[in-house]
Amino acid sequence: MADTGSKSWAATVLTLYPDMFPGSLGQSLAGKALHDKIWALETVDIRDFARDKHRNVDDTPAGGGAGMVMRADVVGQAIDHVYDADVSNDDPDKMDRRPLIYLSPRGKPLTQARVRALSEGPGVVLLCGRFEGVDERVLEARQVEEISLGDYILSGGEPAALTLLDAVVRVLPGVMGKQASGEDESFETGLLEYPHYTRPAIWEEQEIPAVLTSGNHKKVAEWRRAQSEELTRARRPDLWEKFCKESRQTD
Amino acid sequence: MADTGSKSWAATVLTLYPDMFPGSLGQSLAGKALHDKIWALETVDIRDFARDKHRNVDDTPAGGGAGMVMRADVVGQAIDHVYDADVSNDDPDKMDRRPLIYLSPRGKPLTQARVRALSEGPGVVLLCGRFEGVDERVLEARQVEEISLGDYILSGGEPAALTLLDAVVRVLPGVMGKQASGEDESFETGLLEYPHYTRPAIWEEQEIPAVLTSGNHKKVAEWRRAQSEELTRARRPDLWEKFCKESRQTD
Repeated sequence: MADTGSKSWAATVLTLYPDMFPGSLGQSLAGKALHDKIWALETVDIRDFARDKHRNVDDTPAGGGAGMVMRADVVGQAIDHVYDADVSNDDPDKMDRRPLIYLSPRGKPLTQARVRALSEGPGVVLLCGRFEGVDERVLEARQVEEISLGDYILSGGEPAALTLLDAVVRVLPGVMGKQASGEDESFETGLLEYPHYTRPAIWEEQEIPAVLTSGNHKKVAEWRRAQSEELTRARRPDLWEKFCKESRQTD
Repeated sequence: MADTGSKSWAATVLTLYPDMFPGSLGQSLAGKALHDKIWALETVDIRDFARDKHRNVDDTPAGGGAGMVMRADVVGQAIDHVYDADVSNDDPDKMDRRPLIYLSPRGKPLTQARVRALSEGPGVVLLCGRFEGVDERVLEARQVEEISLGDYILSGGEPAALTLLDAVVRVLPGVMGKQASGEDESFETGLLEYPHYTRPAIWEEQEIPAVLTSGNHKKVAEWRRAQSEELTRARRPDLWEKFCKESRQTD
């Protein structure tokens, strides 16, 4: 399945914990795709860009408060190192700049649309913060896009990077194969996915809904659609409202 | 730091990929807490509950379509195994049932409030789906709470489990230590966090905002609060609206 004719989708992770990678991405779907060179994963240890003999990467927050802040000079050098290498390894005219994403709860919430868009580009550079975060000046100076996985706080950007990469790698061409799985999944249609059933036909006295074993493809499709709409309306009124609004605009 | 006087917060992960754990949770903050027995992590291989000689855990979807669905009988047995062990290892009268969470994009979006609530309980049992998902009957029969990390699709529940556990372990007592870090972080106040700065005082001609080096604690606090409000209003009108509504109710 390896697409040897073109360049792999390239992920670079800037982190203080390079050993956390590939982690869960080394196995299963993402692991096979990594092995097949559909994508490539490189880590850059931010600590290698420390400027003093103690290899410090952080310092106390200006204005006081708990915790430590990652230094702009150290992080800035680590970022520049990655993009300088991109330029010197490739024809700069042909190389699209890979987006630089800082994983942070202050960012724009990640969506499946952003996942798809990232998968269609050359790759991504992910900056993982630790401690209280990164000096704001480097985020402003280096065209950083802040992305959030959701409204909760992690110990650092690394679990978020593993999650974002899992989502993107999954939709790279050749990863899920020809089964075309994924097209009616949650969010791809704007709705949550309908419920699934498989054998045994009866389990703990519960049968599979009869329509699914009727052999009537049209009725199956209608039932699934109705279930998706009902689930979305009940569980995610925010998505349902958006879906209805977009449907009206398409009409 | 180990809290040897009480039971560890106990996470059990039901998965087809037990080798993905502890993964990133084996290092840094979560790894140290695991070593200190502040929390415990156990994996259960769902494949061990397969009922045929081929160790099949999945089958084709009833009603047709791409992909495979995890069987209710296999997953049900794996879940029951975990709760049966909880009951036989402990005094059932004293043992709160750990919540059973299925990580799925159809679920309720994870919030920091849910993270805090989970950290205050005895632990969690996480069910990780693969393929198209799990037979709906087992989700209904076993009081499963569906939780979503966000509006995007992963290859399976495992990266989501790693992320959820990272968030919960971080707020367990003793993990972040006495520095009381975390209280003014994003979402804990209902607002996104203000920007951080640290040395050097000037980087690439950009200075740290003067108020932060003024030594006037009141002004620093006011500036940070104003920045938090401004960021939230600009980046997350949804959160801002909610914040304003809740502020009015408190008045």
